[in-house]
Amino acid sequence: MNYKMVIHTIGQVVLLEAAMLVLPLLVGFYYHENAVGSYFIAIAVAVVLGGGMTVLCRPKKHDIFAREGFTIVSISWLLLSAIGALPFVISGDIASYVDAFFETVSGFTTTGASILTDVEAMSRSNLFWRSFTHWVGGMGVLVLVTMIASKMPDRSMNILRAEMPGPIVGKLVPRAKDTSRILYLIYLAITAIVIVLLVAGGMPLFDSVVHAFGTAGTGGFGIKADSIAGYSPYLQWVITFGMLAFGVNFNIYFLLLLRRFGEALRSTELWTYLGIVAASIAAITWNISSMYDSLSDSLRYAAFQVSSIVTTTGYATTDFNLWPSFSKAILLLLMFMGACAGSTGGGLKVSRVVILGQMIWSEIRRMVHPRAVSVVRYEGKVVDKDTLHGTASYFALYSLCIIVPFLLVSLEPFSFETNFSAVVACFNNIGPGFDMVGATGNYAAYSDFSKIVLSLAMLLGRLEIFPLLLTFIPAAWYRR
Amino acid sequence: MNYKMVIHTIGQVVLLEAAMLVLPLLVGFYYHENAVGSYFIAIAVAVVLGGGMTVLCRPKKHDIFAREGFTIVSISWLLLSAIGALPFVISGDIASYVDAFFETVSGFTTTGASILTDVEAMSRSNLFWRSFTHWVGGMGVLVLVTMIASKMPDRSMNILRAEMPGPIVGKLVPRAKDTSRILYLIYLAITAIVIVLLVAGGMPLFDSVVHAFGTAGTGGFGIKADSIAGYSPYLQWVITFGMLAFGVNFNIYFLLLLRRFGEALRSTELWTYLGIVAASIAAITWNISSMYDSLSDSLRYAAFQVSSIVTTTGYATTDFNLWPSFSKAILLLLMFMGACAGSTGGGLKVSRVVILGQMIWSEIRRMVHPRAVSVVRYEGKVVDKDTLHGTASYFALYSLCIIVPFLLVSLEPFSFETNFSAVVACFNNIGPGFDMVGATGNYAAYSDFSKIVLSLAMLLGRLEIFPLLLTFIPAAWYRR
Repeated sequence: MNYKMVIHTIGQVVLLEAAMLVLPLLVGFYYHENAVGSYFIAIAVAVVLGGGMTVLCRPKKHDIFAREGFTIVSISWLLLSAIGALPFVISGDIASYVDAFFETVSGFTTTGASILTDVEAMSRSNLFWRSFTHWVGGMGVLVLVTMIASKMPDRSMNILRAEMPGPIVGKLVPRAKDTSRILYLIYLAITAIVIVLLVAGGMPLFDSVVHAFGTAGTGGFGIKADSIAGYSPYLQWVITFGMLAFGVNFNIYFLLLLRRFGEALRSTELWTYLGIVAASIAAITWNISSMYDSLSDSLRYAAFQVSSIVTTTGYATTDFNLWPSFSKAILLLLMFMGACAGSTGGGLKVSRVVILGQMIWSEIRRMVHPRAVSVVRYEGKVVDKDTLHGTASYFALYSLCIIVPFLLVSLEPFSFETNFSAVVACFNNIGPGFDMVGATGNYAAYSDFSKIVLSLAMLLGRLEIFPLLLTFIPAAWYRR
Repeated sequence: MNYKMVIHTIGQVVLLEAAMLVLPLLVGFYYHENAVGSYFIAIAVAVVLGGGMTVLCRPKKHDIFAREGFTIVSISWLLLSAIGALPFVISGDIASYVDAFFETVSGFTTTGASILTDVEAMSRSNLFWRSFTHWVGGMGVLVLVTMIASKMPDRSMNILRAEMPGPIVGKLVPRAKDTSRILYLIYLAITAIVIVLLVAGGMPLFDSVVHAFGTAGTGGFGIKADSIAGYSPYLQWVITFGMLAFGVNFNIYFLLLLRRFGEALRSTELWTYLGIVAASIAAITWNISSMYDSLSDSLRYAAFQVSSIVTTTGYATTDFNLWPSFSKAILLLLMFMGACAGSTGGGLKVSRVVILGQMIWSEIRRMVHPRAVSVVRYEGKVVDKDTLHGTASYFALYSLCIIVPFLLVSLEPFSFETNFSAVVACFNNIGPGFDMVGATGNYAAYSDFSKIVLSLAMLLGRLEIFPLLLTFIPAAWYRR
């Protein structure tokens, strides 16, 4: 492995984090908060560590193959969270380092699961930083590095692949640098639109920015004890459509930019995603209609929660833990599916669900007509055997990877619903689950051991398992 | 489709059921029970219906292709249950026909889920019939027909395939008739051994026979309110090892009969199965040790329950619903996995789990060395692409098929744990789940609608989805 290149690149990521930490520092200055000092310390740590790694390890060769890509991504995300947790602890807003680490991993992975029992007591700089990690984590921090760094080789597509979700990551344009730039520009533009719409509806600027970060990254950290429930119906609808927009494959927006409307609107994934969202909203609106005063209220709550869960954001406008089992069952299934590939959402991804559905159909055809050639199509193209094999294996691995943290977290004395939904909500980067970890609850009661297990589950989910797995199972690299 | 052959064969199945119903009739005579009359009526119905179908539809061609095989199996199992439910209702032991149908489907599919609130109040003939359906359903009723019927064509292997579980059903010998005969002889022999061992331990003969049926079919219907808890530790151990024995692939016993010991003992599936059983027993024994007086008690309870769940039998010696979450989580996972292919157990089957694990490993290898050829091996042989594709598709379909009944059953007002485990326990043919449907509970509180959904889930699980699906989605047969 090209260790020097790996350490050098991770150093750049840490330096970038130092730059990112300047933003909450400025927020702290603006609001005259004591947390300012803790950001100075964190920035210093990041500059020394990142600078040291970048300067001391100057790679001779700039090659980045799959192995380097996976390692860079895994270590970067762990290190980002470890350093990003510092301000919370130093400022005293979060007492334990494990709690702060959990909260930061939850931020970067855009999970939004929190250990805070009183979020409103937190300083504004910390609230800003917490939500800003969502925004950076949503599109991917290495996508950002690729865009900024001057000397990244063309091979850095290997990094993008490791960090970006979905079975078939489309290269929008041949060069990784340009792809990153386009993605971030689209991302910035839609985030700005959400901020403007929120401010226009009367939400204070700070709240608007922070909630737009949570919406864009499909993260879900709020700044109020009741999440989004206290805001007006208009603001709730803005966030509903905002979340749905960030759950769409960014390739679609790219195609729209290029005015290739026909191609954009022929997307199977897009229509499957919208169809499932619409059906879920209809079913839940019907199921909860007796709980609320008017049908428009039920529709608003249902639309908000479905969008929040399917995009794996995790905001709430009502305590959906009190909804009937049928609605909760739908939400649980949406947790597993998640949003479109190439979006900021987590979960299994709609595209994988579509491909798995096509595989089932092709298998049925094969049983009926053993000699007929049965191919799997996706987005109008025949899916090659490797992608099929990869998707099926990923689904099996995904199921396996839920089992291990579920077993470990089951050592806790909480209800089956709590433990199971906690693992599902963390692994799929949603945030809130049901029962004790529901919309009005939090993860504070879990032991340090479980918090670390759940943190790793969030990382596994966000990075789609393989990068972490391959980094920490070196045996995979040697055996023939 | 060869309709005449289909109806003719189903008629034979119904006639066979008439013959099977003679056994509980004799039991009723022996104990001078009133239920005798209800068996006369049921036999009359079966003879008239089955005889009519057999006599009126004499097929000219005896061809049975995949389509005919699937249809015969699906309709036969539905009809068997519909007729088998009659004695329960006519005798008055079960008041509602839907309840009786649920109980009979639960019997034939070897699930063992019950709607009875007081099993000890039931007549002996009905108790015998209930458990006998386990025994017949375990090995498969069409396997029995294939063995008995004189005019079955060689193509009837298509029926065996549709009814027998597992991704690769080994033809033991070239002819379907001989395969069936060997399977049933092994089945009979081990059942007889269990009966002898139980009687030797002081269990009354009636109890021994009935429990041996439940053990052999991995069904789980008991005749006492506390299942097996009231019997001596020796008897509990006999049933523990009995259940484990019936969870082994019958090919292994066939190889042992042929004295091909080396081949039998090299089975990956066997050792994976035994390894997972041993590890689960160890983990649960440790986890529950503080709940019981001695380590030997904990070991006995753990060993019994692990064997009962992994083989999808469902007997209980203690209320495992009160066990800590960790133990319950292990049991839940074992419910999904199930026993070996080619055994009487249900679930996903160990062989599929092994193949899926191998697929994951091959995918990891492919990511690391994109140009290396990575094949999946099982039982020492390279698994062909079709089997791989089939296994992966089955796993996806299996996950999908749990979702639908789970959503429908979630319309009930019971706890998440109850509804979820009810569907898992029915679909995987286990019987008891957790919470309200736990070892001391039952399915009586569910609505008729949910009971029918759960009955179909049991059939889907027992027949491994495709036969039912293909019979009731005729579109699959026409589209090219």
